Order: sequence, then C-alpha cells, then structure tokens
Amino acid sequence: MKNEDISIKMNSLKKLLKGDKRVIAQTISAVENDVSTMILETIFPHTGKAYHIGITGPPGAGKSTLVNVIAKKLLEKNNKIGIIAVDPTSPFSGGALLGDRIRMTDLALKDGVFIRSMASRGSLGGLARKTNDAALVLDAAGMDYILIETIGVGQVELDIAEVCDTTVVVLVPESGDSIQVMKAGLLEIADIVLVNKGDRDGSDRLLMEIKFAFELREQKIGWHFPILKTTATKEMGIAALVAEMKNHQAYLNKSGRLEQERRAKIMKRINELVEENIRSHLRERIIKKEEMERIVDKVYRRKLNPYNIASKIAKSIIKPRKHR
Amino acid sequence: MKNEDISIKMNSLKKLLKGDKRVIAQTISAVENDVSTMILETIFPHTGKAYHIGITGPPGAGKSTLVNVIAKKLLEKNNKIGIIAVDPTSPFSGGALLGDRIRMTDLALKDGVFIRSMASRGSLGGLARKTNDAALVLDAAGMDYILIETIGVGQVELDIAEVCDTTVVVLVPESGDSIQVMKAGLLEIADIVLVNKGDRDGSDRLLMEIKFAFELREQKIGWHFPILKTTATKEMGIAALVAEMKNHQAYLNKSGRLEQERRAKIMKRINELVEENIRSHLRERIIKKEEMERIVDKVYRRKLNPYNIASKIAKSIIKPRKHR
Repeated sequence: MKNEDISIKMNSLKKLLKGDKRVIAQTISAVENDVSTMILETIFPHTGKAYHIGITGPPGAGKSTLVNVIAKKLLEKNNKIGIIAVDPTSPFSGGALLGDRIRMTDLALKDGVFIRSMASRGSLGGLARKTNDAALVLDAAGMDYILIETIGVGQVELDIAEVCDTTVVVLVPESGDSIQVMKAGLLEIADIVLVNKGDRDGSDRLLMEIKFAFELREQKIGWHFPILKTTATKEMGIAALVAEMKNHQAYLNKSGRLEQERRAKIMKRINELVEENIRSHLRERIIKKEEMERIVDKVYRRKLNPYNIASKIAKSIIKPRKHR
Repeated sequence: MKNEDISIKMNSLKKLLKGDKRVIAQTISAVENDVSTMILETIFPHTGKAYHIGITGPPGAGKSTLVNVIAKKLLEKNNKIGIIAVDPTSPFSGGALLGDRIRMTDLALKDGVFIRSMASRGSLGGLARKTNDAALVLDAAGMDYILIETIGVGQVELDIAEVCDTTVVVLVPESGDSIQVMKAGLLEIADIVLVNKGDRDGSDRLLMEIKFAFELREQKIGWHFPILKTTATKEMGIAALVAEMKNHQAYLNKSGRLEQERRAKIMKRINELVEENIRSHLRERIIKKEEMERIVDKVYRRKLNPYNIASKIAKSIIKPRKHR
C-alpha cells in the first residue's frame, strides 16, 4: 500500500470515528464487498460501546414504524442512533419494504441518526454476517444505540439476534395461524414481547394467549420478560417500551450478564473465524480437483464411504496432536 | 464390540434392507441419537436407489393431505414409499400437526409404506442433517420413493431441498401477503409449483400471479416447471401431479442431470463432513479452556484483534502447505 493510500485511510478512520455519515456508508459498503478483514481489524479497537437492540417479527407487524418512533424517543435524550433494516428482498414484497424505507426518510435526515438497509438479494447466505459487520462499523462510529430490524422467519434472524443485547419481538393480532410456527422460534429469543397495532381487534386476545403460553414455560434466568401493547402509528405505548428496554439494559449491566454474554459472543466469533480461516485454507489447496472428482466418483458408485474419506482428508490437513 | 453384538447388528441390517418397519424405526432413532457415523457407514453401500421428492409450502397449505394422496397414487404401482414429515415443533401448532399425522394413520398401516415425523424440539440446528440421514436409512430399506414434507420457512427447508431430486412447492390462495417473502425463497427451489385447495376463491388468481412472476424470471435450465392446480382433499389433480413428477424424473435421468446433481451433492456432503471432522478436532484440543479465556479477555478489552488471533489459531492447527 502506498503512503498516500494510508493517509487517505487514516483520514477516513478519523471521520468514521466522528460519525461522518458519508464515511459510515462507504465503510459499510467496503466491509460488505471486501473479502479480507482489514477494515474490520482497523475499526475493531474502537468498538464495544454501542448497545444493540433487535426488533424482529413477521412481515406487516409494523416494525419499521416502531423503529422510527423508538429512535425518535431515544433522540430526545441526545443519543446517537444507528438503524440497520434487514430486507430479505423478494419479487413480491420488494415494493412494500421500499415504502417502509421511504417513510423513514424524515428520520434519516436528522443529525445523530444513520439508517442502512441490508438486502439479501435472493441469497440468505452471509446476511447475518454482513449485518453484524455493519453493526460493528456503526459501533465504531460512536452510536449509542444500534437498532436492528429483521423479519423473523428463520435462522438468519436467530444469528442476528446473537449480536443484540436486547431483543424485542413484535407480533400483531392479524398475524394469525400461518405464522404460529415462526412465533414459537421468535419467542425463544425475546427479552421483550410486543403486541403492536394494539388498537385492532384481537390484540387483547393475543396478549392473553402469549401470557398463557409463557406461564407454562421456563423463562430466561433472572429476567421475566414484559409483554407490552403498543400502537406505533399513534405512538402509543412507546414510552413504556423504551422504559422496559432501559430496564433490561440496566438488568444486564447490574447482573454482569452483559459482559458475560459479550464475552461468550466473542468466543463464538473467534471460533467462527477460525473455522472460516480453515475453510479458506481447504478451498485453496489440499484436495486437487481431479483428486476430489475421483473420490466423488467412487462414493457415487458406493465403492467408498463418505464418512471414512472425510475423516482421512481431515487428518491429512490437521497437525497431529501433541502430548504435553 | 463383542461378537454377540456384531451378530445382532448383522441381523438388524438384513432386516433393514428387507424393509422391516420396526427395524427402520429403530435405525432412524439410533442415527438421530448416535454421535458417531457408524450406522450410516454400514448402510451407505446399500443406498442410492431411492428417488427423493420434497413437498414444501407454508403451514396450512394442505401438504400432509397431499403427501397422503400422492403416496396412495404411487402405491397403486406397487412402489415402496417412505415418508418423512418435518415438524418444527411449537407450543402453538403442535396440536394441528399432530392432527395431520393422525389422519395419516390409515396409510401408515399399509404394507410398503413407512412414515416418520422429525421434530425440531425447539432447535432448528441439525434438523436438516437428521432428515437427510433418515432419508438415507429409508433408501437402504429399499424405498422406491421418499417423500419429504417440510414447512417452507427458511434455511432448514433449503438444506432439505438439497437432498430432493424433485421439489414440489405448494401454495394456497389464502396464504396471503404475510408469507410472500417465504414464497419468493420457495419458488427458487421449485421443480413443480402447485396451487392447492384449488376449489377455493382466489386459486385461479394465484395461479395467474405465479405464472406472471415466472415469465419475468429465468427458469432452471432445460426444465420449464409446470404450475398445477390441485384439490388434495377431493383427490383432484393428483394424477396430473404424479405424471409431472415422473416427467421431471425422466427428464433428470435422460439429461444426465440426476447423476450430475447427485455427484454434486456427494461432493458437498464430503466437504461438510471434512469440516465437521475438523470442528470436532478443534473442540477436543488445541485451545485449552484457560488459554481461550485469556484470549477472549484480551479481545473483550480490545487489546487483541479477533481476526488476527483466529488466523493464528487456524495456522497452528493446519499443516503447512506442501509445495509439490
């Protein structure tokens, strides 16, 4: 790298740390496209201060509106807010999601607010990773709160939830039977459960159903999560919601669980990175293409067992165990 | 292992290969609970003959009824049928899914049919793996067709779809907006698209919508998937559906794509197994607990970079590259 490049980068880093919106946007894009971890390595020492809040729920639960009003509430206290909206892009729903984003424009223009959409562009692979990396950039940029909005439909959401300190699960009366299955998975990651569109028919019934379902189940240790009713479009129930978020944050801090969970996340991340490293080593060498094709052919014809051959390949790659 | 044990196992294997229902059930349970791959290694040489059909779609699309009538149709030709129903267990939907299973009992009592439910029991991890392993057992047990029923909500379904030769995606008029996102993901894996509950309002409109959506998109090479209408409860449209399944099977066979795709799946599986092997090596050694805690502590305090340390750990495990 030339000296000139380095000085540009150093200049960018300074601007990023000061929360320059344009540089934040550029850095997130660079992280998304960069296969190396150089940028992340550079910003990492400046992270660890932001508090992460996940907002998740089925499509149409009013998550974007909710994020909007939560952000407004937090802004009153002069907090700096980063928002990441994760959109599983689809030929059907693309329009609707874009609409939600446009409604957010007012907020995006304010000082101290940065909004970013993360699209899956058809493939879910790597979306959780990209989202978490973007959160790291926002963390380095000095955000006090990072709100991550996801549609709760599967593994990706669970992976994103891992980066969040507080997870708010949003349900609506009309979500109905077809997404019951999702709910079940979602409620397991909830620190706060919300029935939004509380002015609609069936919201009280849903509230009761959830309370009933949870009386029969074990709760997370030490924290009995509140089940609240909001009507985001009318900004009803938002103060109570934000208060409960802060309660949860205070609880995590006081009990030492915030530190404990963040250490656990770091350990998990290091293990993932080790695996990624090993995987890239695997890709670039060891098994030559022709060799692999020969193996596949034998397995296809049932002359060879995939379990044995995989074990052999693994042993040929890994250093033998040292006795110490 | 004692000689006695081995003779019991050999006896079981014989019974399994003959399609003994009790032994099939025991073997699937054993595979589910066994951490080693010993059973899979034993049965693997006897697999590769079954044709795998995936039936996937949102909850309430009538998949179970559909699987039921498809199986009945295939039974007319004296085929042996294995059915795996993947249930993401939930405190809400548990009852409904159980109801579906009970409706299948008639079929389960017939000769040449084996039905198994795979429950996630709250955790999605490993469900795709377990399902694919169960399919391997049914394959060894001489099933001509293996029908795998899944609720299309995410990554697990995509992983299961990989084991299927033909994937049928089932939609219903009432699925509505809230699952549009799912649909998008689902249609990408479809070889046949089905509008079920074809006697209900909106089924023709949905059929048109799907046709329209797909005119604008690229189709899988060489196979223009049919979009059919069925009413499974009245056994309407089932003959046409089964005919299209066989068309797809014939197409895959004739074009050589069946072999090609199965080879690709084997390659992918071997890579997965290599990674699993390496991961289990990682777990059992290299980084001692105290060492790892020291590293995590340094990373937590931002004194160390997770990206660098992960790269170092990976290098300490992997044999240096040989120049040949």
